Amino acid sequence: MSLKPYIDPLLVQTAMGKKSADLVLRGGRIVNVYTREVLDGDVAVAGDRIAAVGNVEYCLGPDTVIHEADGAFLVPGLIDPHIHPEVSKLSLTKLAEALVARGTTTIMCSFDQIGVILGIEGIRAALDEMKNTRLRVIYCTPSRLPYTTPASTVAHTFGPEEHKKAFGWDETAGMWEYMIESIAEMEEGVLSPAGELLDKGYLPQGHLPFTSGPLLMGAVAAGAATDHESWSADQVAEKLRSGIYVLLRKASCVDNIAEGIRAVTELGLPTRRLSFCGDDIDCTDIRDNGHVDHFIRYAVSLGIDPLDAIQMATLTAAEAFRVDHKVGSITPGRSADFLLVENLEQFQAAKVYSQGRLAAENGRAVTETETHESADKSPASNEYPTSFYTTMKLDAPVRAEDIYLTVDTKARSADVQVMYLEPSQLRTKREAELPVQGGKILPSPEKDVLYISVTDRHSGQGKTASAFIGGFGLKTGAFATSLSPDDDNVICVGASVEDMVCCINHLFERGGGQVVAEKGKIVAEIELPLCGIMADVSVDQMAEKETELRNALFHRGVSIPKPFFSVLFLSITAIPEYSITDMGLVEAAGKNIINPIIKWR
Amino acid sequence: MSLKPYIDPLLVQTAMGKKSADLVLRGGRIVNVYTREVLDGDVAVAGDRIAAVGNVEYCLGPDTVIHEADGAFLVPGLIDPHIHPEVSKLSLTKLAEALVARGTTTIMCSFDQIGVILGIEGIRAALDEMKNTRLRVIYCTPSRLPYTTPASTVAHTFGPEEHKKAFGWDETAGMWEYMIESIAEMEEGVLSPAGELLDKGYLPQGHLPFTSGPLLMGAVAAGAATDHESWSADQVAEKLRSGIYVLLRKASCVDNIAEGIRAVTELGLPTRRLSFCGDDIDCTDIRDNGHVDHFIRYAVSLGIDPLDAIQMATLTAAEAFRVDHKVGSITPGRSADFLLVENLEQFQAAKVYSQGRLAAENGRAVTETETHESADKSPASNEYPTSFYTTMKLDAPVRAEDIYLTVDTKARSADVQVMYLEPSQLRTKREAELPVQGGKILPSPEKDVLYISVTDRHSGQGKTASAFIGGFGLKTGAFATSLSPDDDNVICVGASVEDMVCCINHLFERGGGQVVAEKGKIVAEIELPLCGIMADVSVDQMAEKETELRNALFHRGVSIPKPFFSVLFLSITAIPEYSITDMGLVEAAGKNIINPIIKWR
Repeated sequence: MSLKPYIDPLLVQTAMGKKSADLVLRGGRIVNVYTREVLDGDVAVAGDRIAAVGNVEYCLGPDTVIHEADGAFLVPGLIDPHIHPEVSKLSLTKLAEALVARGTTTIMCSFDQIGVILGIEGIRAALDEMKNTRLRVIYCTPSRLPYTTPASTVAHTFGPEEHKKAFGWDETAGMWEYMIESIAEMEEGVLSPAGELLDKGYLPQGHLPFTSGPLLMGAVAAGAATDHESWSADQVAEKLRSGIYVLLRKASCVDNIAEGIRAVTELGLPTRRLSFCGDDIDCTDIRDNGHVDHFIRYAVSLGIDPLDAIQMATLTAAEAFRVDHKVGSITPGRSADFLLVENLEQFQAAKVYSQGRLAAENGRAVTETETHESADKSPASNEYPTSFYTTMKLDAPVRAEDIYLTVDTKARSADVQVMYLEPSQLRTKREAELPVQGGKILPSPEKDVLYISVTDRHSGQGKTASAFIGGFGLKTGAFATSLSPDDDNVICVGASVEDMVCCINHLFERGGGQVVAEKGKIVAEIELPLCGIMADVSVDQMAEKETELRNALFHRGVSIPKPFFSVLFLSITAIPEYSITDMGLVEAAGKNIINPIIKWR
Repeated sequence: MSLKPYIDPLLVQTAMGKKSADLVLRGGRIVNVYTREVLDGDVAVAGDRIAAVGNVEYCLGPDTVIHEADGAFLVPGLIDPHIHPEVSKLSLTKLAEALVARGTTTIMCSFDQIGVILGIEGIRAALDEMKNTRLRVIYCTPSRLPYTTPASTVAHTFGPEEHKKAFGWDETAGMWEYMIESIAEMEEGVLSPAGELLDKGYLPQGHLPFTSGPLLMGAVAAGAATDHESWSADQVAEKLRSGIYVLLRKASCVDNIAEGIRAVTELGLPTRRLSFCGDDIDCTDIRDNGHVDHFIRYAVSLGIDPLDAIQMATLTAAEAFRVDHKVGSITPGRSADFLLVENLEQFQAAKVYSQGRLAAENGRAVTETETHESADKSPASNEYPTSFYTTMKLDAPVRAEDIYLTVDTKARSADVQVMYLEPSQLRTKREAELPVQGGKILPSPEKDVLYISVTDRHSGQGKTASAFIGGFGLKTGAFATSLSPDDDNVICVGASVEDMVCCINHLFERGGGQVVAEKGKIVAEIELPLCGIMADVSVDQMAEKETELRNALFHRGVSIPKPFFSVLFLSITAIPEYSITDMGLVEAAGKNIINPIIKWR
């Protein structure tokens, strides 16, 4: 189902009482996100959209199904305006079930990972899969693929031609990850489609970490309209003052809400252009904490009025993408997405209605056994084309010598650059002295200096770059992931290069996943057969697996809370200050490729 | 100049400090409409747009012109989101000067009157004329022309074909006067282009007087996004709760602000989706009170915080049309439109910058004698094509018998329906007994029952409809206007049918205007040679003329404050409850055509 074409004659007639409603939710306390009021009333639904709100007795007919709200609050379906669905590792169908169960009924996303793996046809397939779920996607084209600078190896790029195609899709309403690097360099291949989009009235969504002063002025002048990379209240304030919609992020390993919300609670700024986003969330987080419902509870715990928090998570998110006529409020014409909530502070969705039907109850998706009109809603699970299973390509196995960094065979030690992962998840640079044996620089688990490698998984050639990483604390073995935005090449971290080789080759053999190895054996594993990054399992099953893998690393000395989650973003060059791709160790968003080896003796 | 294409590389480079600004306004107190703050800072301008805000020293170069703000408040250029420019009777060039002088730098309009007279080519010419002024137009297509129901005589209609053409214009960002009648009747010719527009992400602007309950639900479901016809705080509240942007109107003869603002001051609703509009303003009003600056002062006097009032008149108006990335705030990328104001409560624009240049000072437009880059800005005054002067067509003069309503020649009196103009400007129905002579029903100035007639001025055939009107108080003579939305046929009101004939024929001879006649002679006149509705004179000249005409009517017994202004809307069928067009006396937006004669004896 679609919100295009917007004007639905049957809906308008139902609204005016000339036709009876399909469903009426009776006796709710409706949260009005326009006026910040709670008003007693009913909601009438026609098809998958809201027809009338308030006293809707006039919409009742002989075939109208009546559900009782029993005085529960009716809250608009929640919106995550910036999320990378693939990072959940769930198939889109299973992710939709998991998020809808927690009250999220709309997400904005770009499927940029599917994009580098399967190209625009894969993205279109993802959007088609989403149509068969209860989670609506407002689509934004990735500003360019790969996002990495310099471009790392991917199977498919996304440029002006692909933008043009995707701008024609019904779901498209923006551009994604409009990176400050692209703007600063006036990158034609990005600014040109961004300009085309702006001229259509849609807005590019900025990726503006630590962007301030003249650079921020440039980003805004170039049309960047949102940002999800604000790490302090002052950054939030500066962006709000520049008219940017600030999406306060609570990812599974980055919390920007606690700091960012101080722009409201301490600096006194209005919430009018503030919303939340998840960006990257794992299944453990979804299972244990929730999703946008969690952001609301968290913001309330930090001093935000529940009505403001709900407004931020619904209307404001929709406004930021100019789709508030389609989603984000309980108003005629909008998608019939709303939650029944008993208590606005504790905020748990007892029931979730999405696109006009009960979609979840008590945190569980309602399976589609209804007969009426649901023929087009058969679960798409397990029905993926072969191309989804054949994306991990490697002509010849990776060998230890592909990973080891070497110096003169006579050297005994080497000084190296170490990319260090801070607790904040930002990356700084340190130096370390490492032992050398037969010319090979050895990792030093004692000093918390490990090898990190990235191996091309797209072309078959298996180009591998190595460097050193600190901050994990792994003492023995290695771990690797084939899920790794922005290019989904295989990232591996190891205290032992031989175990790294074991991890990497295993992932290629299995078609993707996340593994831990020690002494040449895989000791824990998540299989990710879909594009090498997703699996068609439930959020609970995946969360259990995540725990297993985490524990396998905790037992081997790792001290950071989400080691797999932390490692998988290390190829993103657009996050300050260091990253690694199959091109090498990258500094300052591609400005420099660094040789990790400083000197030896 | 245009805000399309949106991304201007020179602007972005200036914002980032890679190129110096053309103009810097230094040392202002900038009103930030996003955060409701006043922040010390400067504004850097590149071309006609804002490049940077705050400390912009880095934008200074050897050629940068520096203007000192001297601590004045810098306020974004004001926006009137719903105005019919033609009703001012000024040429568009002169109207632009008048409005910009008072701080209005953007208007949303449809040129619907030029549309019925000259068609879509006339509208395009109007937009081209506006390009040479400092007043930016955000264009909205008229939902259909004529707006009247049943359709009255016009020279040009506007339907799906014209919508399609106009949707391709750079200025277009919406649809205008999306009338509740069209929605209730599911009028294909209106709903189809409205739907097309919604599917592009733009919004139809509603015309929803007294629309409530199921009808309002229908209007919102059909995409109506704003309304400028709210007569009470409760109506405002109901519309705000339905997500509608409510534009509180202060027209020259209708004040909906005083009542409407109570939704905020008494009902406690937020201003987030509240703005102002002028709709229809005359030159006396502009000269004596101002425009949007006046709405701000008025709202402040009614208890609205000045920062809220400014936000309503800038950002919110822009958001309602989804053009807040182009206008409505002092932010990079936006049109360089801002005012220098010494005091936010008293709110007088000491200087007005529009599209990057000083456009007015102390209430006077700055004439374009500057040399730099202004070659494209030569005044378009007095340079209209012949077609603008030949729009008043009449094959044979109107005669008294075309106006008189007649009954049996033996009758002595007749009972008639009288359209009565209430002080609120709404129209009710009364009955009266009138004398009959030789079968002709005579007007009765003693009973305040006059003749009103409408004569087709487009086709040459001069079809004339007559009825009776009360509420004016005219004792002798007659007055007429060829400016008369929605169809600009000639409306005449008279205590003497002979003087009506004199007025009407005179207007046709002169090619348009407004006149008062007594005893067969014209006693006061405004010439409106452009399309029969506008004149290329200054606002002050026109205001003086308006005073003359008003006084001519006051001397003849008229007691309502703006008789010409009140009469010229009587052909609008979309305002409850009665109206008159050349088709006859119309009830309930075209539902019935009423015979004014009830019975005779």
